[in-house]
Amino acid sequence: MVNYLATVVVTLKQVVNDPQGLTVRSGLRQLGFEEVDEVRVGKHIEVRLSAENEKAARARVSEMCRKLLANHVIEDVRFQVEQQDAQVGASR
Amino acid sequence: MVNYLATVVVTLKQVVNDPQGLTVRSGLRQLGFEEVDEVRVGKHIEVRLSAENEKAARARVSEMCRKLLANHVIEDVRFQVEQQDAQVGASR
Repeated sequence: MVNYLATVVVTLKQVVNDPQGLTVRSGLRQLGFEEVDEVRVGKHIEVRLSAENEKAARARVSEMCRKLLANHVIEDVRFQVEQQDAQVGASR
Repeated sequence: MVNYLATVVVTLKQVVNDPQGLTVRSGLRQLGFEEVDEVRVGKHIEVRLSAENEKAARARVSEMCRKLLANHVIEDVRFQVEQQDAQVGASR
């Protein structure tokens, strides 16, 4: 088994209202960042998992997205998978 | 002025406890994803802004991170800035 790091980005679909983003935008503008036009806030999820190979890892992460990580009615999801060193705790 | 899209990723520092990540990990494992080792949840923030040039945009986004977007005591932050087409609403 090989260790992989999947980075999953979950964002609200463009047609869905984003109150958190509006709040951040308002805060930035109050702080003097008047050049800010729009802010959208999504989730950045890092999943460490083991799998036989990268193809298998990608299939499992895709299933995780479908079953738990994203709400496909209102959210878009994309991810990338990269192989990790066997031992955790070295330079990372 | 040119339009830019800044993508800011805010993650908890590795030494900081991540209850949200633990909850997602637990949920995944209960759904049968027993190969999941660790989950960390961070924020993915998209900021649309205008600036004279990319260097100026990067400087302003860096300031936004410092002043509002991230808590530097417990969070790490990184971002990238890319130029957008002048008109919004076309292919993106």
